Amino acid sequence: MAPSPATQAITLPDPLPLDSGEALEHVQIAYETYGELAADKSNAILLCHALTGDQFVAREHPVTGKPGWWARMVGPGKPIDTDRYHVICANVIGSCMGSTGPASDAADGKPYAMRFPVITIRDMVRGLVGLLDQLEIAQLHAVVGGSMGGMQALSLAANFPERAARVLAIASTARHSAQNIAFHEVGRQAIMADPNWAEGDYYATGAAPDAGLAVARMAAHITYLSEAGLTDKFGRRLQDRPDGTKGAKSFGFDADFQVESYLRYQGSGFTRRFDANSYLYITRAMDYFDLAEEHAKDGKEGRLADAFADSKARFCLVSFDSDWLYPTAESRHVVHALNAAGAPVSFVELSAPFGHDSFLLDVPELDRVVKGFIE
Amino acid sequence: MAPSPATQAITLPDPLPLDSGEALEHVQIAYETYGELAADKSNAILLCHALTGDQFVAREHPVTGKPGWWARMVGPGKPIDTDRYHVICANVIGSCMGSTGPASDAADGKPYAMRFPVITIRDMVRGLVGLLDQLEIAQLHAVVGGSMGGMQALSLAANFPERAARVLAIASTARHSAQNIAFHEVGRQAIMADPNWAEGDYYATGAAPDAGLAVARMAAHITYLSEAGLTDKFGRRLQDRPDGTKGAKSFGFDADFQVESYLRYQGSGFTRRFDANSYLYITRAMDYFDLAEEHAKDGKEGRLADAFADSKARFCLVSFDSDWLYPTAESRHVVHALNAAGAPVSFVELSAPFGHDSFLLDVPELDRVVKGFIE
Repeated sequence: MAPSPATQAITLPDPLPLDSGEALEHVQIAYETYGELAADKSNAILLCHALTGDQFVAREHPVTGKPGWWARMVGPGKPIDTDRYHVICANVIGSCMGSTGPASDAADGKPYAMRFPVITIRDMVRGLVGLLDQLEIAQLHAVVGGSMGGMQALSLAANFPERAARVLAIASTARHSAQNIAFHEVGRQAIMADPNWAEGDYYATGAAPDAGLAVARMAAHITYLSEAGLTDKFGRRLQDRPDGTKGAKSFGFDADFQVESYLRYQGSGFTRRFDANSYLYITRAMDYFDLAEEHAKDGKEGRLADAFADSKARFCLVSFDSDWLYPTAESRHVVHALNAAGAPVSFVELSAPFGHDSFLLDVPELDRVVKGFIE
Repeated sequence: MAPSPATQAITLPDPLPLDSGEALEHVQIAYETYGELAADKSNAILLCHALTGDQFVAREHPVTGKPGWWARMVGPGKPIDTDRYHVICANVIGSCMGSTGPASDAADGKPYAMRFPVITIRDMVRGLVGLLDQLEIAQLHAVVGGSMGGMQALSLAANFPERAARVLAIASTARHSAQNIAFHEVGRQAIMADPNWAEGDYYATGAAPDAGLAVARMAAHITYLSEAGLTDKFGRRLQDRPDGTKGAKSFGFDADFQVESYLRYQGSGFTRRFDANSYLYITRAMDYFDLAEEHAKDGKEGRLADAFADSKARFCLVSFDSDWLYPTAESRHVVHALNAAGAPVSFVELSAPFGHDSFLLDVPELDRVVKGFIE
């Protein structure tokens, strides 16, 4: 899980204040850039990654060797055109691809593990703004993100309203629902139930809680897909047996159904590129996310519109009709708040069969919306 | 997990043939009855329980001390009126409340564990019909079940068409979808990832795979509730802290949100009354369930209508609008097949906020439907 040598990294000069009241010292932010920064620094677009994403937007992933997670969206002549824009994507704090997280060494030279402070989405954004400060980028042309990346985009708009002229949040939400929290809690419990987790102190043992992390990933992965999408892709189709028998039930506990095999593959593949403690910290940050509550004043319940009171940005919200993790109602809730705050906002619900993962997949209409909004 | 002494049990005289081609010898079926059997044995109603249910329909559970799972529905003067009907509910084979399952002793005097054969819903029904044979009940007044109980009711109608005059399947399906299989596979992997599982041979170790089973239960439990129901019940409400602080974030990994605490409670409570290997076997049986495929002939794809070709029963299907585990479309699919088979069928989608669990909860309209149908 060491960052690729190609990744750039900066260390923030000042301790990063956190919502918990703690501060994180010597914060490193690892990032990738694409396209040239204009002399007046007016063409920078910050992409914010999702829970298990990273800075490798459009470059081969150093661990998996796979194309970047948004290679279809970012590049020369692509919807986010790197011939025109300078695209920045940084690994969030708490993660494990080069930015400071639980696997990083604390001041005593040992990994933080569970000594890492609990962070919030706003803390991640503070880290990103710290990077922008170092890069001397006063205002972004746009901040763009899907899923947890959308949360960061909205949080940046709310907390650093001068820093982005355009805010694009895709398949996202302004708060985690009870069901969202519940699924994350299952994942955390799966990790913590793995004896290899060892209260988080597994870095020196040579045995990470991969089994627990894989189960967490499997449960989460189901929420990223739609029921119809799973049926289209797998239905009840059976695997061919190792002995060559075509699609027959084993009357055992092997992966008989293709969907079982697929999930197991997703789970085990994930453990090769992700740190279990990072999964705990980042899911916790997402569960804590409630942009309205964050902007509550005078002991009153927070109004989401108040979060955007100081914003001058233009907003675009995109949802997918098959996304049951952050359904359209969540995006619409944000749109209504932006309307109430008097902010210019466009909103579109796209039809796509892939569930929440639609923001990462081949949805040509999304390409047009992204391209149109950032221009 | 020993059966209550109050539970009756019979041993089937003949080996039980299974869909796998194996046969199970000395099969014990544990069951409870309520109400008097008429002299002509015409008033028997068989209730079929769900995945983690048991025979304790309307009697205190011997392990948990809680009321039976359908105490609200079954009893004197209740919708299934035990002043009129003789209600039978048996623990399915593969389970762990007295019927033969993986925790039972095999011929060598040691628990079957993973030597227990993989069973199907039809095999469970064969066991139930074996019980009816012993009780010399030729035809049931009705067979009734919710969720996996509904699968058994439909399977009994399809495979033993003479044995029930009325068939009531609530919140159920005629086949497990890819998403259903996926959620079950997460649960199985959680159990198998627990080192205490020990390839299933944990009965003598004194350490069952409770952590894995709890995670399995937590993931499944989310699927039993609706998103709106979870929001109504818990929303983002925080727990009061152990130190007395009212509803504040801990910035740690305790159960901050009430929904987290609830899920943990559901998970740990479940392990006290259920056997992890039974969870593996019963989820497998459900995943294998596809009533159309079971009745495929001459190598052609099965038509669900063919499964009901010999039926003379009256059917009733009930779904709930908030059930996303077995949504209304699944019940409607069965209704269409019954129509095609020329079977008399009534169908109703009830509105209830509780998701899949609605069939167990306070839905007065369900009471009326059940009472009306069985009369």
